[in-house]
Amino acid sequence: MSTIKTINLKNRPQGKPQLSDFDFTTAEVAELKEGEVLLKTTYVSVDPYLRGRMVDAESYIEPFELNKPIVSGCVAEVLESKDSALSAGDFVTGLLEWKEQQVTKAEQLKKVDPNQAPLSAYLGVLGATGLTAYFGLTDIGKPNKGETLLVSGAAGAVGTVVGQIGKILGLRIVGIAGTDEKIEMIKSEFGYDEGINYKTTGNMKEAIAKACPDGVDIYYDNVGGEISEAALFNINKFSRTVVCGAISVYNATEMPKSISVQPFLIKKSSSMQGFVIFDYKDRHPEGIQQLATWLKEGKLQYEETIQEGFDNIPQAFLDLFEGKNKGKMLVKV
Amino acid sequence: MSTIKTINLKNRPQGKPQLSDFDFTTAEVAELKEGEVLLKTTYVSVDPYLRGRMVDAESYIEPFELNKPIVSGCVAEVLESKDSALSAGDFVTGLLEWKEQQVTKAEQLKKVDPNQAPLSAYLGVLGATGLTAYFGLTDIGKPNKGETLLVSGAAGAVGTVVGQIGKILGLRIVGIAGTDEKIEMIKSEFGYDEGINYKTTGNMKEAIAKACPDGVDIYYDNVGGEISEAALFNINKFSRTVVCGAISVYNATEMPKSISVQPFLIKKSSSMQGFVIFDYKDRHPEGIQQLATWLKEGKLQYEETIQEGFDNIPQAFLDLFEGKNKGKMLVKV
Repeated sequence: MSTIKTINLKNRPQGKPQLSDFDFTTAEVAELKEGEVLLKTTYVSVDPYLRGRMVDAESYIEPFELNKPIVSGCVAEVLESKDSALSAGDFVTGLLEWKEQQVTKAEQLKKVDPNQAPLSAYLGVLGATGLTAYFGLTDIGKPNKGETLLVSGAAGAVGTVVGQIGKILGLRIVGIAGTDEKIEMIKSEFGYDEGINYKTTGNMKEAIAKACPDGVDIYYDNVGGEISEAALFNINKFSRTVVCGAISVYNATEMPKSISVQPFLIKKSSSMQGFVIFDYKDRHPEGIQQLATWLKEGKLQYEETIQEGFDNIPQAFLDLFEGKNKGKMLVKV
Repeated sequence: MSTIKTINLKNRPQGKPQLSDFDFTTAEVAELKEGEVLLKTTYVSVDPYLRGRMVDAESYIEPFELNKPIVSGCVAEVLESKDSALSAGDFVTGLLEWKEQQVTKAEQLKKVDPNQAPLSAYLGVLGATGLTAYFGLTDIGKPNKGETLLVSGAAGAVGTVVGQIGKILGLRIVGIAGTDEKIEMIKSEFGYDEGINYKTTGNMKEAIAKACPDGVDIYYDNVGGEISEAALFNINKFSRTVVCGAISVYNATEMPKSISVQPFLIKKSSSMQGFVIFDYKDRHPEGIQQLATWLKEGKLQYEETIQEGFDNIPQAFLDLFEGKNKGKMLVKV
């Protein structure tokens, strides 16, 4: 038996999370039982939604327990197996603890093929990120060819995929991001027709109006807050807002306030729909197949920001809230 | 030719509308041309949405022009006709000017039968009010038997119909209104299982939780503002909010702010959808037929607050914002 490192939640963050909210401990790896595998963590996904699990409030998913390991999407290598479906050397994805190694039930894992796509892609474009982009845009956004799609957090993990799917579906796509470099990237690599740097733009309402001369038919919202207020002034009749994320308010210490959406929704017969990717679990295979096909056809590019080293997982998570990632943020262990 | 009275919009109201925002003028009635009828106004509908037409802002409908007559749903009697479809003595409904008499094109009118239902019902339960309740609840609310329906503005024109349709469809129904008398009325006459008087309730969030022990599956929102904030804390997974009206903010002089809805919508995979009854114009006949059937079967009651006299139309409109109406507010000319 070997001693391995674990990252626990030490404190429930107040406002912006700090490194001191995380705690490193060591423990021995448990012994394998029938149906279990021993895994070595390869890639760890850090995601804005994890912030929601760090508070003790009712949500769509259980809050993390204090002094217990944090859990997120990971790719891992099978070191030992007592399950007939998996062998040593296989790679798997699943919701795993932030541990260098761990024992878990094989049935909770999904085997992935490192020859079909790079392993990290299974946490991004072929994983929860890609599925979130795909179902949010197609099922909630209900796109029609020629419509205008506005995306906030356009240079993030989900946003970079949303833009490309939008392009495949024949939409005109405008993205909002926080640096000129990101704007350049989404236009040159991810199918965006126009980009708005919200950090250097004084009047977002007017900037969106200018970038979307026919108005906004679909608003794919990853950020909430003031950017989404500005978007409201530009929505078209019968427009759809896909409420995917609200990273701008996840660290708020008081209940955030915004312009009342109701009068806008009435005026424009417009909808807003929230979702999480678990809602579509019965349709995940369909989504993954479509994304894999587009990837193979070269229609889908992806961007990753990969940090190195198990010890850097908490910092990588904190960096999300500073917008330091382009595309999917991962840690290679 | 006779001289008749007209009510014009004199000023665009700032905040709460005042009697001084309206102006009475007199004019002669125009001469009848082919295809036109001379009408004598019988009932005038006053509605919260008219407030939106009094400001000069882009909306789903043109703003009223200053020094021109206000227009709303009316029932009128045909005095003279130069159209083969209508004869003197017929009654019609349509969007008409606030005038004692007027000449208009017959093709813009719908003939109604005073023997099938009282004339005033064609502005309420068999008119835009009933259709708003019907399509909002059935098409946007997507009700399933046994679910909990929360209705704000429950004692108003739309709310009293929504409750009864909800009861017909097998829902548990909780209404919010502003007097104990209204709460008593919605429970005894309009199918509500529970009622909450928001003016005497300190903590609306808790009051809704108590009245809706299984949470809120459908929130039919006529008011917006703080009441809708309290509702947000009680919505269920996959719940639907029907955004019908926002009377609490129509007179706001600054852009009203509310708790950000996005985090709630994500947590609960919940939707909000605004609409206006024009969106369903192709389906109006279906709606009216269903409402008329329920009315005939005695499943639909309706409440009216009828004020008397042409000169009292502006005051009746102002009274809406004080909640002085029970059910549909009308003026009998």
